Amino acid sequence: MKQRLLYDLAGNDESVRFSPYCWRTKLALAHKNLSFETTPWHFTDKDAIAFSKQGKVPVMVDGETTISDSHEIAEYLETTYPNEASLFGDASSRALIGFVKAWTEDVLQPAIAPLVVGDIWAMLDPKDKDYFRETRERFLGRKLEEFALARETYLGAFKKTLAPLRRTLKAQPFLAGSAPNYADHIVFGALQWAQITSKTPLLDDEPEISAWMTAVLGTYGLR
Amino acid sequence: MKQRLLYDLAGNDESVRFSPYCWRTKLALAHKNLSFETTPWHFTDKDAIAFSKQGKVPVMVDGETTISDSHEIAEYLETTYPNEASLFGDASSRALIGFVKAWTEDVLQPAIAPLVVGDIWAMLDPKDKDYFRETRERFLGRKLEEFALARETYLGAFKKTLAPLRRTLKAQPFLAGSAPNYADHIVFGALQWAQITSKTPLLDDEPEISAWMTAVLGTYGLR
Repeated sequence: MKQRLLYDLAGNDESVRFSPYCWRTKLALAHKNLSFETTPWHFTDKDAIAFSKQGKVPVMVDGETTISDSHEIAEYLETTYPNEASLFGDASSRALIGFVKAWTEDVLQPAIAPLVVGDIWAMLDPKDKDYFRETRERFLGRKLEEFALARETYLGAFKKTLAPLRRTLKAQPFLAGSAPNYADHIVFGALQWAQITSKTPLLDDEPEISAWMTAVLGTYGLR
Repeated sequence: MKQRLLYDLAGNDESVRFSPYCWRTKLALAHKNLSFETTPWHFTDKDAIAFSKQGKVPVMVDGETTISDSHEIAEYLETTYPNEASLFGDASSRALIGFVKAWTEDVLQPAIAPLVVGDIWAMLDPKDKDYFRETRERFLGRKLEEFALARETYLGAFKKTLAPLRRTLKAQPFLAGSAPNYADHIVFGALQWAQITSKTPLLDDEPEISAWMTAVLGTYGLR
């Protein structure tokens, strides 16, 4: 059997795996019924994945093949394992997943980031802390500590952002209908990142979304 | 040949047809290669559509069949004309259109409404003006005139709302991929409503979105 290894972003407690993009890949692998091992990886472990010719996870090694970038990995899995359930569905479905991805990355994840950056910093391996602070403060344009001061405002904006997801999941079990596909994996990844890293619950008062997250994991025998 | 008639919301100038939901239906009919006539309808013409047992447009009469509600009409067209191009695609695509619909109705249309309610009121048949003002002011919670005062704020919020649409249309010709389907019709309806009713241009600085709107119409030989 092929050896399959995933480099998976971890906290100082290496059982804490919080990358939204690694979650996409773990669910995509499970969707394709593929077994895999994960190895914990930290932001500054650039040498460990230098063989992938870039510096971010997920990095997946599938036998002789190395692929990085969650989207590339999903495309690879769909092409390489066509007999398993499709990650994307038909051409229209695949294209609409592009919209779900754009919404997740341009709207949902930016609404989560201010709520969790401070908590993420606190849970990192000490060697990662300066790197994380510098890159995130540059990207987000303010000090990590400033986000905590406006937490209620950010929480309200995050809740508002969930409206179309909440409404969709009131009408159907998964974004992709009666079973999850990569559209669900993308949105799940963002909210799993939020849930795992936030020190305070963010989805306790979201019954439809919480039930859907449990059902996504349950579909693949995960928890 | 079957007679097909659509009751289509109109302004005082009856050539102005601005309902986002009627636009969905007009595009869905064109997608199914179905010819149809429209008849102008005004908000207070409740008697004219009393035969549909409800008070809103679109109302479509297809031979012996009367259907109201744009979503019901789309479902009817998909079922009744299965040999034409699908409006929804496969099960996953159909479900993802549910998310696009929720985003359009919970995020996009509410971002457009404050920018156009005043302009819509001004273009209505005089007999509709009191009805429109009363129902919209109750729903939106303020006087129509108040929206104009905060126009710049609403315009900024609207532009921000477009981010995932803009990004998707940079990567692919239509929401549904290489050709439009009902996902495109839903979002097009909202933006066509905005374009037709706003006295000031809302999409002039949005090349991807403008090109896509032209391409949606062009697909069906409309303009």
